[in-house]
Amino acid sequence: MFIAMNQFQVDPQRGAEFEAVWRTRESYLQGFDGFRSFALLKGDDPGDYVSHSMWESREAFMAWATSDSFKRAHGNRMPEGVLAGHPRARFYEAVIEERAGEAPGG
Amino acid sequence: MFIAMNQFQVDPQRGAEFEAVWRTRESYLQGFDGFRSFALLKGDDPGDYVSHSMWESREAFMAWATSDSFKRAHGNRMPEGVLAGHPRARFYEAVIEERAGEAPGG
Repeated sequence: MFIAMNQFQVDPQRGAEFEAVWRTRESYLQGFDGFRSFALLKGDDPGDYVSHSMWESREAFMAWATSDSFKRAHGNRMPEGVLAGHPRARFYEAVIEERAGEAPGG
Repeated sequence: MFIAMNQFQVDPQRGAEFEAVWRTRESYLQGFDGFRSFALLKGDDPGDYVSHSMWESREAFMAWATSDSFKRAHGNRMPEGVLAGHPRARFYEAVIEERAGEAPGG
């Protein structure tokens, strides 16, 4: 399992605008091979947001990230001043996984 | 949906030891109300690890985090020098969610 996270520092006064841009976008994720789930996460720290997507593998994510659908999904403009800095992307592979109702695996 | 993440900076030479402590622990997560999934994530950045758990709600996580099972699950000792700093915990609520095969929701 592969997780891509992009961490955004948002002006804490402008979280509603940031969320609105995400709510009104077309994600184009459905039907992508290996796509498991997406979430926009709001942190307890003011202005901390993370876009969080889960994939069967790094290869599945890379196919998405280099697709035309990815470009289309990220075409929405963020109003000026909503972001308080550059987003920071981090990529992770699961080395241990455990789901409700399943025995742990690694 | 609620996600708890604990970010660990591990000595990049000692990742195998860090993973071994996690692999040999009893998680005690099964059967906890509202538990969805756990993963130990290894980042592309050297020594970057995240313990990542998903819950139906913040309340479900808090019940776990204040339980005796939580204490038991975290009783394993990490060998000295494996961690290169203090872990950093971050907590998130999903404001938008989309899963494979489902229409987006928020």
